[in-house]
Amino acid sequence: MGILKRRGGAGSSAPDEFVAGNGLLHRRALLGKGLALAGAAGTLGASMNGAGAEPLQDAEWSGHQGTTVEALGRRSRFEKDTVRILSNPKGEARTQHARVPHHLLNGTVTPNQLHFTILHNGIPDIDPEQHKMVIHGMVKQPLVFTLDKLMRYPMTTRKAFLECGGNSAPMFSNEPVQATLQHLHGLVSNAEWTGVLLSTLLDEAGVDPKASWLLAEGADTAALTRSIPLKKAWDDAMIVLYQNGERLMAEQGYPMRLLLPGWEGNMNVKYVRRIKITDQAAMTYYEARNYSPLLPDTTAYKFYFINEVKSFITHPSFGTTLKDPGYYEISGIAYSGTGRIERVMVSADGGKSWAEAAVEGPTTPKSFTRFHIPWRWDGSPAVITSRAIDDGGNIQPLRADFVAVRGQTLKPVTNTFGFASQHYNSLTSWGIDAKGEIKHVYV
Amino acid sequence: MGILKRRGGAGSSAPDEFVAGNGLLHRRALLGKGLALAGAAGTLGASMNGAGAEPLQDAEWSGHQGTTVEALGRRSRFEKDTVRILSNPKGEARTQHARVPHHLLNGTVTPNQLHFTILHNGIPDIDPEQHKMVIHGMVKQPLVFTLDKLMRYPMTTRKAFLECGGNSAPMFSNEPVQATLQHLHGLVSNAEWTGVLLSTLLDEAGVDPKASWLLAEGADTAALTRSIPLKKAWDDAMIVLYQNGERLMAEQGYPMRLLLPGWEGNMNVKYVRRIKITDQAAMTYYEARNYSPLLPDTTAYKFYFINEVKSFITHPSFGTTLKDPGYYEISGIAYSGTGRIERVMVSADGGKSWAEAAVEGPTTPKSFTRFHIPWRWDGSPAVITSRAIDDGGNIQPLRADFVAVRGQTLKPVTNTFGFASQHYNSLTSWGIDAKGEIKHVYV
Repeated sequence: MGILKRRGGAGSSAPDEFVAGNGLLHRRALLGKGLALAGAAGTLGASMNGAGAEPLQDAEWSGHQGTTVEALGRRSRFEKDTVRILSNPKGEARTQHARVPHHLLNGTVTPNQLHFTILHNGIPDIDPEQHKMVIHGMVKQPLVFTLDKLMRYPMTTRKAFLECGGNSAPMFSNEPVQATLQHLHGLVSNAEWTGVLLSTLLDEAGVDPKASWLLAEGADTAALTRSIPLKKAWDDAMIVLYQNGERLMAEQGYPMRLLLPGWEGNMNVKYVRRIKITDQAAMTYYEARNYSPLLPDTTAYKFYFINEVKSFITHPSFGTTLKDPGYYEISGIAYSGTGRIERVMVSADGGKSWAEAAVEGPTTPKSFTRFHIPWRWDGSPAVITSRAIDDGGNIQPLRADFVAVRGQTLKPVTNTFGFASQHYNSLTSWGIDAKGEIKHVYV
Repeated sequence: MGILKRRGGAGSSAPDEFVAGNGLLHRRALLGKGLALAGAAGTLGASMNGAGAEPLQDAEWSGHQGTTVEALGRRSRFEKDTVRILSNPKGEARTQHARVPHHLLNGTVTPNQLHFTILHNGIPDIDPEQHKMVIHGMVKQPLVFTLDKLMRYPMTTRKAFLECGGNSAPMFSNEPVQATLQHLHGLVSNAEWTGVLLSTLLDEAGVDPKASWLLAEGADTAALTRSIPLKKAWDDAMIVLYQNGERLMAEQGYPMRLLLPGWEGNMNVKYVRRIKITDQAAMTYYEARNYSPLLPDTTAYKFYFINEVKSFITHPSFGTTLKDPGYYEISGIAYSGTGRIERVMVSADGGKSWAEAAVEGPTTPKSFTRFHIPWRWDGSPAVITSRAIDDGGNIQPLRADFVAVRGQTLKPVTNTFGFASQHYNSLTSWGIDAKGEIKHVYV
């Protein structure tokens, strides 16, 4: 589990083991030790008087009956800012986005209430007893599935991230947009999904050997429809019914959605009601118009399915201030639509030198992986950034290389359409000044 | 990931491969295949007319704008019964329990809103800026930690189940209590926790080599206080700050709680404000009175820390009815407070014969593991049950063996105190009659 652990008492005096420039420490160094600790004692743990120190005084809340437990657990009122930001809070008749506050979260799970969502026509109110899903087209036996019937099939549980193709659109700006991770990368989430492998259902229907694509259609008003290579259906596509243990959230496709682990969000069709087996792509609105990124040379990607290897540092990040020099842990999220995260490199000197972060396991493919590395900030300006490598050897591209191919815009963009705004997977870097304030910078 | 997968079209005709009595199929059998499928086609997927079947007709919800996305995601209104049941819904001045609806969930994560909780004095409203935690007693350097300071330490993320020592108390009844899993086993949950290893903080304080225990105390009005062998602190104890990615729920110890993976719930002190290092157990109210289970021979366990290896079938289970004979998947949860789940055996004939279920990986120690096995129910009476084995070779005891040591009561008990009501880890069995109705039975 990537645990940092060492036995022994205060007073050991091993020096810090720096592994890269500007204070990066070995990923297995223990911070609370010997000299390293003594130097930071005033910061990390103010001493009390004497070894027999008495317990803390009772606080106000220690003296009376608390509030009542309810049928659904409650968050603390002090966490009221840990919510999604909305692009269309009045629900006007256009697309609605809800973005995840990654700078306030930790671990690898996105709680269901905070999972990102994008809906083109609001949240449909689907009666699960009435909903049906059809598999038809180039099959021996067309089938229709009610939820009741689907519930009897073999289930699989797996973790997978979901990311909008337009996540990180502001990163295409030629000047770094000064905003939190929630604004920059808030359209990606990670969850444990449970459902039926699509291959199990296709086996039952009997797919024509000449078939090569499927068309997936949602039951919401948008009837979002996407073409998907059949190979993905045989590989790891699922019809999911549960999200982090409970039935799908209403806005996540309740009662059933298509999950294509590692592939861009909109292809994971919510409220799925139809899988048509075909021998060609349908070139629907959402693939011919919306999700075909243009390139600087005026060509376009016809399809861009995979969310490629990517990482960003969540702690510390824009929106927080380092109060004092001394020890911090640099921590973040890495993921790859093609496999498992193999390694994450971190730099504290803007990419001049790199050190390998600890990666918390067990890592699972196409899922968030948490990385961290201890860091001693000496109080002078620093630039921290991360770069992930997956088990297929894919490396998160440096910004200059990425921009040379994919272009950038002359001013900040916040929409997810058009020129140079999709599938950003280059670095995210934070510049820390002598006051400990954090700015978004490019390296 | 324990994926059941097989390529090919309808029409293969391999016979069912039975691996134990009463219809249990090999855990890697695919249900949607050949003859097995054809026999079940009318049940599992009603055929449509012709291979070119048209899409489903639009439902009411496909024709208009849906509802608005909010800052916190919403569940479907059709899931209103997927909530916890409360022992004290008016919050009277006594203990409050909230139990998990395991029969309605799947996968391995308990969503934060549905995590079980027990509080003796309600939920305290703690200001995280004011809360402090002290480490003192037999240490070189007593320390006090604010949340701000704790946030700078190295963090670890791990999955762990939490279970009340009194979970499953109704299972001590000499007659099987007819109730859902929520009533029988609703005081156990599983989550991903992120926080600081207690060993890191103890290293900084410098523990006296003569010390052997610690006393952990909560800041709520109950000031729940428990003695914990110091060895557990060095092993895997954590001060946790995050639950499934977000800060701890108010009722789970916000802003910080002690986590002792695999050890009975009440020792995982919520709202922890004090860790006192000592050389003996304090014999507090919650260990001398409440959590010292009595045995039939009038002796008592002085301490009973570990929640031992256990499993139960969640699908199908009490509260559901099998509508038709044919294929079903038997699925459930297994966990062990001493390690990783190695194997789960399932019987469909009340324990006369057993087959090995598929265990979904990667398995992690002291955490929920989901198991499943395909089953062909022939419509005659059956008794399904499960038995887990952990990687230490510990086997979930048969009921007769368990009761011989631990006793049972003459009538159903629902409280968690006193004679024969704690740490039940024997089998849970479901009797299915010819109408498909499910009763709780003992085997």
